[in-house]
Amino acid sequence: METVTTLEELRIARQKLREPVGLVPTMGFLHQGHLSLVQHARSECPAVAVSIFVNPTQFGPHEDLDAYPRDLEKDLIMLEDAGVDLVWTPTPEIMYPKGFQTWVQVDKVSKPLEGTRRPGHFRGVVTVVAKLFNAVLPQRAYFGQKDAQQVVVIRQMVRDLNFHLKVVVCPLIREEDGLAMSSRNSYLDSEQRQAAPVLFRALNTAKEVYKAGERQAEKLRKVMIAEIEAEPLVKLQYVSVAHPDTLDELDQVDRDALFSMAVYLGSTRLIDNFLLREGEWQTGQKISDAKV
Amino acid sequence: METVTTLEELRIARQKLREPVGLVPTMGFLHQGHLSLVQHARSECPAVAVSIFVNPTQFGPHEDLDAYPRDLEKDLIMLEDAGVDLVWTPTPEIMYPKGFQTWVQVDKVSKPLEGTRRPGHFRGVVTVVAKLFNAVLPQRAYFGQKDAQQVVVIRQMVRDLNFHLKVVVCPLIREEDGLAMSSRNSYLDSEQRQAAPVLFRALNTAKEVYKAGERQAEKLRKVMIAEIEAEPLVKLQYVSVAHPDTLDELDQVDRDALFSMAVYLGSTRLIDNFLLREGEWQTGQKISDAKV
Repeated sequence: METVTTLEELRIARQKLREPVGLVPTMGFLHQGHLSLVQHARSECPAVAVSIFVNPTQFGPHEDLDAYPRDLEKDLIMLEDAGVDLVWTPTPEIMYPKGFQTWVQVDKVSKPLEGTRRPGHFRGVVTVVAKLFNAVLPQRAYFGQKDAQQVVVIRQMVRDLNFHLKVVVCPLIREEDGLAMSSRNSYLDSEQRQAAPVLFRALNTAKEVYKAGERQAEKLRKVMIAEIEAEPLVKLQYVSVAHPDTLDELDQVDRDALFSMAVYLGSTRLIDNFLLREGEWQTGQKISDAKV
Repeated sequence: METVTTLEELRIARQKLREPVGLVPTMGFLHQGHLSLVQHARSECPAVAVSIFVNPTQFGPHEDLDAYPRDLEKDLIMLEDAGVDLVWTPTPEIMYPKGFQTWVQVDKVSKPLEGTRRPGHFRGVVTVVAKLFNAVLPQRAYFGQKDAQQVVVIRQMVRDLNFHLKVVVCPLIREEDGLAMSSRNSYLDSEQRQAAPVLFRALNTAKEVYKAGERQAEKLRKVMIAEIEAEPLVKLQYVSVAHPDTLDELDQVDRDALFSMAVYLGSTRLIDNFLLREGEWQTGQKISDAKV
């Protein structure tokens, strides 16, 4: 496994990789969710590249950029063990040199849900992802369904800007009690950690109510809200039942819907989602079931 | 020479090209200025690709999109004669399919000069150029110094978004009487056409005054304004003496400055510029001197 920092080093290392190259963009502090992306890439591509970069431009001014957890040494051991070929760890100065002034922006699908609560977030995400794509030139890029809106936004950018690569979306990975894996889970104290599976329970309840025949989106939102509000440690930010491609809120749920939510547990913000696609539920995998 | 329309056709044709590939992006209605770009590309690259696309998103709502001159048949003959390997002629529906919503924007250097007078113009330019780069994946891309600010904006985008290609800027090509070649010159009636070299004369006067020792930018702007205003058919929009990289207006001119202007001749908008770079003047080439 080769680890590089500068753009020049990256380009030299990239040329040596066999194609197709699979890229797994990360912000580091890796967990089983990231490793499942690597494993998917490994199974489909002769060469796997991983980027580790805590991207400052996708954090709002009052968000957790400085506090965001980092452990590069451990990350590199995990990636080496996972059979990664190339790791790129650029610095903020490499990604955003003095005079930087170019932004990529996806309009409509960046606006609702996370976009409303985190203004500028997706501008930062798609700008850095465009830079990663141009720098690494992967044939395939791997993202987790955990960040459901991010997937929609990046797919839209890839299509609109003619990036010649396939976006591969991998299942959300959950702890045994259903909590979606996230680097931010490390912020939770033990009491908060115990309360955190309420997101998964709320999504499961909505799924059961849907299966029992409920098709009104507002009713499905309400059962999720009720479940969240029953947990006193958790403060709800939003629940959504939206079209999975346009992210427009639905009135009626047919065979396609993204059920998603964001909550605060103390100062820690957590998101989760279930995806209903052509009548099939994608609810993620528990670690013990995932092959990582 | 192969001519393709769809993105899929382009990608197949692109794979057959020898590298490095030189790309010349155009809006068609080709003239000697475009041909000089092709010739530069031809001299440096084993394969030359040309795109012809009148990009709607770089035209303002009251600009000349519908009237913009087109002659694809003649363009293709000229490009075949010039030894081009691949021509891409996408339709607006291919470049901007239903649901298109992603924009690339360069902030600071897009704002002054043309940016002030043509809001949204450079957003349209860099978005389509990013799409062309991603679709064609050229190693070199050729632009004319005629559109001086466009060159600055595109270079900034290439740097900021990590596009792996070299932007090659070629001299402005002039008619024998000094008028900068432009597809829009075809709008001029014969009286307007006779008046049009006033831009070149004004720039030349500023150059002579500089050579005589004048270093105050405001004085240099004034000599250009005086020359333009002496021509009754011409309505001045702006003159500028700016730093050639930041496009900040200068107080004092040292060894680097972009002298530029925009005027109306009737409803036709014309631009022109001289570039002073490290004390050397780049004023363009007359057709008879250019090797095209």
